[in-house]
Amino acid sequence: MSLDGFVAGANQSVQEPLGVGGERLHEWVTSLATWRRAHGMEGGDVNESTRVLEQEIANIGATIMGRNMFGGHPGAWSATDPWKGWWGRNPPFHHPVFVLTHHAREPLVMEGGTTFTFVTDGIESALEQARAAAGERDVQIAGGATAVQQYLAAGLLDELYLHTVPVILGAGERLLDGVGDPALEVVDVVNGPGATHVKYRVVR
Amino acid sequence: MSLDGFVAGANQSVQEPLGVGGERLHEWVTSLATWRRAHGMEGGDVNESTRVLEQEIANIGATIMGRNMFGGHPGAWSATDPWKGWWGRNPPFHHPVFVLTHHAREPLVMEGGTTFTFVTDGIESALEQARAAAGERDVQIAGGATAVQQYLAAGLLDELYLHTVPVILGAGERLLDGVGDPALEVVDVVNGPGATHVKYRVVR
Repeated sequence: MSLDGFVAGANQSVQEPLGVGGERLHEWVTSLATWRRAHGMEGGDVNESTRVLEQEIANIGATIMGRNMFGGHPGAWSATDPWKGWWGRNPPFHHPVFVLTHHAREPLVMEGGTTFTFVTDGIESALEQARAAAGERDVQIAGGATAVQQYLAAGLLDELYLHTVPVILGAGERLLDGVGDPALEVVDVVNGPGATHVKYRVVR
Repeated sequence: MSLDGFVAGANQSVQEPLGVGGERLHEWVTSLATWRRAHGMEGGDVNESTRVLEQEIANIGATIMGRNMFGGHPGAWSATDPWKGWWGRNPPFHHPVFVLTHHAREPLVMEGGTTFTFVTDGIESALEQARAAAGERDVQIAGGATAVQQYLAAGLLDELYLHTVPVILGAGERLLDGVGDPALEVVDVVNGPGATHVKYRVVR
């Protein structure tokens, strides 16, 4: 998230999926050796943020994301060449991923253990399916902003993990609009190079 | 600042100067023994935020604030009973304070070393006067949001110290609107109870 609360810049598109300046929000993670290895690349940094990323992914058994994060284009799927995500043939999830969408589609089985399942009957259904798939492990709401907002507003999040980057975008997609006033408390703070990581627990 | 970027809630008024919910942004500081002593009260907490507050005030030689933070009401000053600030006869500043306003007024000398000087010829003039008054010490832009925005946008801030509270206000006065895209880097992170304190340096 930028200092002014945006998780993507203005004018998101297939060419610029994170919008104007949005890539700057991810530099802290894309520079990490752990992230690069998971995406089939060599090299990279090991620093305070490494532990944050490793803990964040260690116990995830299923991921939920919005249609816009899965990406490609809005509206119905192409019948001839449907969008298969941003991540190539072997996406870095390696577990079941549930995509919130208004447009039904058969599950998409990728290499390496990632299957995209398209859920058209709402966030609670997606959560139920993700929980069943994750078993004892955690379910992650990966994004985008709208998906996080819906789960937070519905009282379905246990934790909110914000990685704040010292960048002011000025425009784009705000993470915390329209989520009501959940009671939160800080459970962890890590000062990584390029991002401040703060984990919040939703108090019930 | 709230998690969603507000430094005051909606509907600010003389009765509720920080707007709806805005007091919750200051609880971390008003509960500190250091803050309470400075405001003539006994008791209070000593914790990780104590060092933050003490370091923040230790080297301040002059303060600049906007008219709305000085408060009372918008428009011209009352001729018979002009507003004298929120802080009583002995304000907690104990150094020269420069108030940005469109309405000229004689300086207001309070007890304990605080003098309010009303500056009508702009932020650079106020900064020049504050620097002269502070000598070797620092000048603090205390607030509100508009004053901070003007100095940040003009490239006149050296540091930005954000105290982020795990509260989502949903509406109010945003701190970082319209400030452009200054290059910032984190210089200090403290996890206090009730607020995460992050000091940013403006890179030139």
